[in-house]
Amino acid sequence: MSEQTQFINGVAGKLNEFVSEKQALMATVSPDVAPLIGSISSLVTGGKRLRALMCYWGWRGAGGSANDPGIVTAGCALELFQAAALIHDDIIDRSDTRRGGPSVHKRFSQLHEMNGWALDNERFGHAAAILTGDLCLSFSEESFTEIGSRAASGSKARQIFNLMRAEVMAGQYLDILEEVAGPVRDKAGSVDRAKSIIRYKSAKYSTEHPLALGGALAGAPEGLLKGYSDFALPLGEAFQLRDDVLGVFGDPETTGKPAGDDLREGKRTVLVGFAINQAQEADAAYLDRILGDPDLGEDDVTRIRTIIVECGALDATESLIAELSNNAFDALETLPVEELPLMALRQLAEAAVSRAA
Amino acid sequence: MSEQTQFINGVAGKLNEFVSEKQALMATVSPDVAPLIGSISSLVTGGKRLRALMCYWGWRGAGGSANDPGIVTAGCALELFQAAALIHDDIIDRSDTRRGGPSVHKRFSQLHEMNGWALDNERFGHAAAILTGDLCLSFSEESFTEIGSRAASGSKARQIFNLMRAEVMAGQYLDILEEVAGPVRDKAGSVDRAKSIIRYKSAKYSTEHPLALGGALAGAPEGLLKGYSDFALPLGEAFQLRDDVLGVFGDPETTGKPAGDDLREGKRTVLVGFAINQAQEADAAYLDRILGDPDLGEDDVTRIRTIIVECGALDATESLIAELSNNAFDALETLPVEELPLMALRQLAEAAVSRAA
Repeated sequence: MSEQTQFINGVAGKLNEFVSEKQALMATVSPDVAPLIGSISSLVTGGKRLRALMCYWGWRGAGGSANDPGIVTAGCALELFQAAALIHDDIIDRSDTRRGGPSVHKRFSQLHEMNGWALDNERFGHAAAILTGDLCLSFSEESFTEIGSRAASGSKARQIFNLMRAEVMAGQYLDILEEVAGPVRDKAGSVDRAKSIIRYKSAKYSTEHPLALGGALAGAPEGLLKGYSDFALPLGEAFQLRDDVLGVFGDPETTGKPAGDDLREGKRTVLVGFAINQAQEADAAYLDRILGDPDLGEDDVTRIRTIIVECGALDATESLIAELSNNAFDALETLPVEELPLMALRQLAEAAVSRAA
Repeated sequence: MSEQTQFINGVAGKLNEFVSEKQALMATVSPDVAPLIGSISSLVTGGKRLRALMCYWGWRGAGGSANDPGIVTAGCALELFQAAALIHDDIIDRSDTRRGGPSVHKRFSQLHEMNGWALDNERFGHAAAILTGDLCLSFSEESFTEIGSRAASGSKARQIFNLMRAEVMAGQYLDILEEVAGPVRDKAGSVDRAKSIIRYKSAKYSTEHPLALGGALAGAPEGLLKGYSDFALPLGEAFQLRDDVLGVFGDPETTGKPAGDDLREGKRTVLVGFAINQAQEADAAYLDRILGDPDLGEDDVTRIRTIIVECGALDATESLIAELSNNAFDALETLPVEELPLMALRQLAEAAVSRAA
C-alpha cells in the first residue's frame, strides 16, 4: 500500500472512531440526537481529502515521519472543519445536493416530511443543519487539540489553524456580500473583488494553510513555509477558478450538482466579473439582472454560457488558471523538499487544476 | 472594588482586547468584513456574565487564586461561546431582538436595506449571521486554548469544555425537534421531554459545566465536582424554568423581548407541557393548534396565559422551580468551600431563580 493510501486510510479510520465515540456520547443524551452525528458521519466518509493531503505532504516535506499519529489527527481536524463548512455553506447557498445526495439541511427536511411532523419542514431543516455544523466545528477543534503539544497555545500550527478559520469565514462573507452588493458597486472592480474572495474563501483555506499547517507541525523553518505559500496560494486560486468554470459549464453527472446552481445562487465569480466587463452592454445588463434568480431555467443557463464564451470571459479565466498554475508549478520545483513529497504535491496540484468535478 | 467586579472588569477588558485584535486582523482581509466583528463586539459587551461568574467561583471554591489571568481567559472563552450560541439561536428562533436591540441577523438585514443592495435582505441577514456565529465559535475556542497547559488536550477542563459544547447543541436540537414532533408524540411524555431539553440546552451549559470548568482548572477533586453538580444542575433547571415563565408572562420592557415570542416560536416548554396535560380537552387542542403560529396575536397570548393559569400549569411550574431551587440551595450549603465563594454562589443562585428578566 502506498504511503498516501495508508495516510488516507488512517484518517478515515480515525474519523470513524471519533464519530462512533460521539454517537455513543450523544446516545446518553437522547436517541433522538442520532441524525446529527449521522449527517456528520456521512459527510466525512467521502470527499477528495485535498486538505488532509496538503497537510500530510507539507509535514513530510518538512521532515515529518511517515504516518505519525499526530499528522493523522491533524488530517481528521481539517476534514471535520471542511464538513462543518460544507454544512453551513449549503444552507447559505441553498444547495439541496452535495456529492450527488441530499445536503444536510435537505436530509433534515426529509426526516421531517417522512415523520409527518408539524410546522415548516424547510425551516426545521435549516435549524437542524445550523446545529449540526456547529457541532462539527466543535469536533474539528476537539480533534485539532488532540494533536497535543505541537498544536498547543502559542504554537505556529495553532496560529495557522486559527488564521485559517477566521479567513475562510471572512472570505465566505465577502462572497455573499458580493452577491448582493456587486450589482450596485463599480463594475470595473468586480474582477479584483472576485479574486480577493477566492483567495480567502478558498485558496488560503483549501491549500495554503493546510500545507503550512503540516509544515509547521513538523517544525518547518520560515523559509520553507514561504516556499509552500508561493506554491499553494496560486494553486488554490487556480483550483477555485476551475471550480467556478465547472459551476457554469460542468457536467451535473460528474460534479454531482445541478447545472447553473452557481448562477441561480448569484455567485459573482471571476468568470462572471470578466463577462460583466467584456460583454456587450445589453448582455452585461441581462447578466446583472438574471444572476441570483432562483427560477433561472435551462434556456437562461444556455444564454449565459453563450455570453461568457463569446465575450471572451471563459478564455480570460482559462488564461488566468494557466498563469496561476504555472506560477504554482514553478514554485513547486524550487521547494527544498525530498523527491517523494515533491512528487505527491505535483500530483495533487495537477488533479486540483485539471479536474472535471 | 470587590473581587467579583474586578473579575468582570478583567473579562470585559480582555474581551475588548481580543475583539480589537481580530478587528485589526480582519481589516487586512477587507474593510467590508468589519460588521462581523462589530456584531460580536456588541454581543460580548453586555449580558449577565452568568457563565463566566459560575466559572470564576468554581475556581475560587476549589482554591484557585483571585483574578488569575487563566481564569479571566476561561471567562472570555465562555462569554464568546455564549455569544456564538445566541447568534445562531436567534436565527433558529427567528428572534429579531436581543437585549432590546436588533439581533445579529436583523442587523445584517438592516445593513442590506440601508445600502440598497440587491436580492433578498432577510436571506442575506441569515447567511451573514451563520458566518458571524461560526467565527465567534472559533474565537471561543481560540480563547479557551490560550489558557494553556491547564486546558490542554486530555485535561479535565478540556473534557468539560468539549462536553459542554456537544451537549448544548444536542439540547438545542431536542428543543427544535420537540417544536415539530411534540404535536404528534404522546402527550403524557411532554413534560419529561421538556425537562430533558432544559437539562441539556440550558442547565448543564449555563451553570453545571461552567462551575465544574472553573473547579477543574483549579484542580478540584472528583468529590467537589460532584458537589458542584448537585448544586448547579437543579439551579440551572430552575433558571431555565424561570426563563420559560418569563417568556410567556414577562414584561417586554424588562425582558427586552416581545411578549409571546416563545409561543409564536412553538417552544414546548415544561410550562406548556403541564398545560397540554392539565387543561380542558378543547383548550389543549387549541394550544396544540396555535403554538408555532407566527401570526399569533395579543388576544391569543392573553387566552393562552389564561389557560396556563387556570389549569394549574403555572402553579405546577412554580412548584417545580421552588423544589429545584431548594435542592440547589441545600446542596450549596454542604459544599466544602470557603465563605467568600459560598456567598458569591448563593447570590448568583438567588439572582438566577428570582429574576424578572
